[in-house]
Amino acid sequence: MIINGKPGDSISASDRGLSYGDGVFRTLRVHHGKPLHWQQHYKKLQHDCAVIGIKCPSIQMLATDIEQLILQQTETSINGVLKIIITRGYATRGYAPAANPQLSRILNFSSTPTYPDSYSSDGVSVHLCKLRLGHQPRLAGIKHLNRLENVLAAAEWSDDKIAEGIMLDNENNVIEGTRSNLFIVQNGKLHTPDLSRCGVAGLQRDRVIDYARQQRIVCKITELTMDDLVSADEIFLVNSVIGLWPVRELPGFNCKQFPLSLQIQEWLSHENNKKLVG
Amino acid sequence: MIINGKPGDSISASDRGLSYGDGVFRTLRVHHGKPLHWQQHYKKLQHDCAVIGIKCPSIQMLATDIEQLILQQTETSINGVLKIIITRGYATRGYAPAANPQLSRILNFSSTPTYPDSYSSDGVSVHLCKLRLGHQPRLAGIKHLNRLENVLAAAEWSDDKIAEGIMLDNENNVIEGTRSNLFIVQNGKLHTPDLSRCGVAGLQRDRVIDYARQQRIVCKITELTMDDLVSADEIFLVNSVIGLWPVRELPGFNCKQFPLSLQIQEWLSHENNKKLVG
Repeated sequence: MIINGKPGDSISASDRGLSYGDGVFRTLRVHHGKPLHWQQHYKKLQHDCAVIGIKCPSIQMLATDIEQLILQQTETSINGVLKIIITRGYATRGYAPAANPQLSRILNFSSTPTYPDSYSSDGVSVHLCKLRLGHQPRLAGIKHLNRLENVLAAAEWSDDKIAEGIMLDNENNVIEGTRSNLFIVQNGKLHTPDLSRCGVAGLQRDRVIDYARQQRIVCKITELTMDDLVSADEIFLVNSVIGLWPVRELPGFNCKQFPLSLQIQEWLSHENNKKLVG
Repeated sequence: MIINGKPGDSISASDRGLSYGDGVFRTLRVHHGKPLHWQQHYKKLQHDCAVIGIKCPSIQMLATDIEQLILQQTETSINGVLKIIITRGYATRGYAPAANPQLSRILNFSSTPTYPDSYSSDGVSVHLCKLRLGHQPRLAGIKHLNRLENVLAAAEWSDDKIAEGIMLDNENNVIEGTRSNLFIVQNGKLHTPDLSRCGVAGLQRDRVIDYARQQRIVCKITELTMDDLVSADEIFLVNSVIGLWPVRELPGFNCKQFPLSLQIQEWLSHENNKKLVG
């Protein structure tokens, strides 16, 4: 790990990231020592910092941190997952933020999680979470450190055959997976939940929306119900680490063919490879 | 500080308290080296741990931690504020909690914050926060580490004359202060907001409710609107550190006499003193 520009594995126990979850983060893939879609991830980080009222460290500073983190790794061909946390830093007691806080930067590298190949090719089985997401428009869409809802939702299943859980909000709108964004395909059109009141708008979600635009596939950001889900032609989940997983099974829904999902998956992966060569 | 039973000031940067705000905390007063209302605070801690699905460390273990923390202090007569954080501990990536996590215990001692005496005697001026609390019944009432709403609310004012901010929920019900619970007095009766959908149910709030019961003062836990607030005979705020502050001023509300507030304040303080002697 690289913490505030130096090798380390601990932070001040008075960090506001711990006290209040007062920070934001990103999780992205590293291929051959290079973070994938780094510029776009940085933009997201910058945006999310602004939402909670902190000034994101410069891209140069974080790039230097990443470089150091990669140098720490002993393998010659470095593939894995990079997590970047930015917090409002050390503080004495009290919720009110300091005018010029000394932010904390915490970078961690870990190996790529291994999932069965079938998750990508044949789809995954998903759990329908009981936990309902609360609405907080001031924090909706951003990847902040207040993630107890995701923790409680992810604690709902322990069956290894279940790859992800789908979460609804407290008005029973479908919102997202516990660690992924969700799309459905209906009559050749894409629909993805509106995340203006809750949920995290991940970078892969943006990429799918961009791809749809390029390909002139209609993609609506909208309210989605469980009825919409179970009557969909295809459902798929995306995030920067897993890529794209079609949904094979969900209570009330079974699907064995996901042509559009696989087409988008192929494109996402192809674009990743282009980045690597470039 | 005492961290996991040992002197220290840092925690693992992979602690779930930092990654997800996956933990709970308490803040309480220490008088002459003794934590005030410790048994009741421990019960709250135990309850809050259970809500997020962790087993609270034993009261003996925490009492030993506190003893060590007090021994660290150099002053002979130790008065101050004790903060106890319990998190789900160190973990590798992923929201899903481990079956038997090794929890983290973080205890911090700080000096008693100094407030003008007038806050207790003449009341405080409060800000009406723009931020609206979201509803999350699964986490409502407990003192967990997901406190970005409080941070954003507390960032709304910088005027030193403002002692606290009052927060409403997204249906415009009055809920609490950013770091305190709220009561109103109307025709000799107490009313305090229902916290079953959001807010933190502090120990001082319980004590006021208990006192009302003892004194046969009606105390209703109910929905409160801003209309109820501005037409109240008295408004007061409580928490374990500040004790009780009557509200002197709030947009649309002015009050210079708070007989019941001061009576309850007197009792809370008297009971604290009894504890110290006992």
